[in-house]
Amino acid sequence: MRETLADWRPAIDEAIADLVPREIDADYLESFFGPPTYEYDPTGIQRALATPLWDLLDRGGKRWRAVLFLVLVEGFGEDPAEYLPYACIPEILHNGTIIVDDVEDGATIRRGEPALHRVYGRDIALNAGNAMYFLPLKILTRDPADLPAERRLAAYEMLMYELNRTHLGQGMDICWHNETEVRIGTDEYLEMCACKTGCLGRIVARLAAIITDQPPEVEEAVATYAELTAVAFQIGDDILDVEHSLGRAGEFGKAFGNDIREGKTTLLVIHAIQESGPDRANRLEEILASEDNTDDEIREALSILEAAGSIEYARERALTLSAQAREAIDGLAFDAETTRKLNEFTEFVIERDT
Amino acid sequence: MRETLADWRPAIDEAIADLVPREIDADYLESFFGPPTYEYDPTGIQRALATPLWDLLDRGGKRWRAVLFLVLVEGFGEDPAEYLPYACIPEILHNGTIIVDDVEDGATIRRGEPALHRVYGRDIALNAGNAMYFLPLKILTRDPADLPAERRLAAYEMLMYELNRTHLGQGMDICWHNETEVRIGTDEYLEMCACKTGCLGRIVARLAAIITDQPPEVEEAVATYAELTAVAFQIGDDILDVEHSLGRAGEFGKAFGNDIREGKTTLLVIHAIQESGPDRANRLEEILASEDNTDDEIREALSILEAAGSIEYARERALTLSAQAREAIDGLAFDAETTRKLNEFTEFVIERDT
Repeated sequence: MRETLADWRPAIDEAIADLVPREIDADYLESFFGPPTYEYDPTGIQRALATPLWDLLDRGGKRWRAVLFLVLVEGFGEDPAEYLPYACIPEILHNGTIIVDDVEDGATIRRGEPALHRVYGRDIALNAGNAMYFLPLKILTRDPADLPAERRLAAYEMLMYELNRTHLGQGMDICWHNETEVRIGTDEYLEMCACKTGCLGRIVARLAAIITDQPPEVEEAVATYAELTAVAFQIGDDILDVEHSLGRAGEFGKAFGNDIREGKTTLLVIHAIQESGPDRANRLEEILASEDNTDDEIREALSILEAAGSIEYARERALTLSAQAREAIDGLAFDAETTRKLNEFTEFVIERDT
Repeated sequence: MRETLADWRPAIDEAIADLVPREIDADYLESFFGPPTYEYDPTGIQRALATPLWDLLDRGGKRWRAVLFLVLVEGFGEDPAEYLPYACIPEILHNGTIIVDDVEDGATIRRGEPALHRVYGRDIALNAGNAMYFLPLKILTRDPADLPAERRLAAYEMLMYELNRTHLGQGMDICWHNETEVRIGTDEYLEMCACKTGCLGRIVARLAAIITDQPPEVEEAVATYAELTAVAFQIGDDILDVEHSLGRAGEFGKAFGNDIREGKTTLLVIHAIQESGPDRANRLEEILASEDNTDDEIREALSILEAAGSIEYARERALTLSAQAREAIDGLAFDAETTRKLNEFTEFVIERDT
């Protein structure tokens, strides 16, 4: 898995640099965005777009969405190297959502360095993040693989379907942060993950299926695989945050007890509230709802999660989801190597330590 | 003009309510966004999306982008009432950019009430604003007018072209706010307006042309008309901010000297710096670059703009742009009533007092 990821990364970053070069000039702007009516300011667009985008990308990130796309394209019998620009679509979208999420959450650290809005200002960061929602969609118009019109339209309609649901998921998640009691159950939580994280996974899979012209049932099977894998990944993220805070995992590049400080309603929280007595459940809600928490309060909340067995519960759910992901593609005609790689993704997302 | 706007407003708001009802339930979510994998939380999505969206729309706004779309559709010989859902596309996009811009600028007031991020929190406001970038694009997939596939694809490609340039314009504008000296000239300023405000105008015009199947030269002519009108509108906005601050215009719903406090590089500022002596020019840059300004400093900056004749200069440029807009559609085969309405738009944008 780590090898597959590492092998592709330079080629992916090169493909992204073909779309948004590290150094922007008037010629690039004209060729990518169209001729100006008057005159572009390349210096301004460098500062507003290329510099923050590459700052974030150069900090790391596994590019696993791009790699999953390429593995699927290869599994569908096409040469992945020919579809590299399309692999950038979910990757740039994902990095855009990171910038916007950090502004929404008031996050301080991202990938071990100050969050982008703390480096460039909220205005520049936010506009760069939003630009990264639309930039990758231009790739379909530029059409590097010379796709027929109906596939380009199918790709646009798919993207609009999934990107709308992404915002529903993010909306539910944020709304729950702001509520003083935990009102929802595990089904709503999983739906939030399916929308917020799963839809970007579905974009990866459906895009690979659409551009290689797979039948609808294959597109749906890989979409389900990617959604389930992404939901497992999201739960894995929630577990990692708690385990790191309990000193059980390695460095996580995030502050201690981050999710609890933010008041996130995670699967672990929902489980702990359902399984703890009313005193502990109320105390957990109280700590989550509070604007500022002492380190002792964070430790108290973590111990409530631990005592309720919520980490084990969440890990079980994540493992079940990743098994369901493997089942979803079981009937497809992938070669053994592709199947091995795709199965590895479902394990990676919950066994990683960063 | 005011009549044309007032006549259409109830129908436009009803069409928006068909897309995003004031009261959200699970049936609506399933029919508009697709079936959930697990279970939606309609209460959460109500709070995260429908409530902030309708709060902003109910505060006012002239819906002139939607009305311009309908005037063009009628001018192209089609029944505007049949294309109402498409008229919502630029209108929801525009209101989304307002929410996001206010977060970026840290604005306090919008349409006479607290900016949305001050009512609902930065996270909810921002996600609602971003959702409003993708929501209207789903209308094309739902395809209420039963458009052939090539027109839907043309509409998507057009939207991706224009929405990418919107973010270039916003990026330049923000970047200049943050710079301590005024580095750019009028051509870059006009380009910023053409991208930031003009592209949304172009979306209105091109969408009307695409869905009614006009030839490319007609689409281009109305796009140019709308871009020029929007640039004139943007300059009109800058003039209004200064005139209001000088006590010459009516209530503007904004704080006094807003643009100067924000450090905006407007056409008036660029002109004043070019036309004033170095002492005044430096002093203006200094006030614009400062994080906090006293009311006396704002008055000083305004007097520098006034003494340089920058208000008259900006008004002349806006009048020229609106004359060019009328010329752009001069050769088209519109009936007299459509031409009259379209010309009225170009005058309205610089003669309005709010």
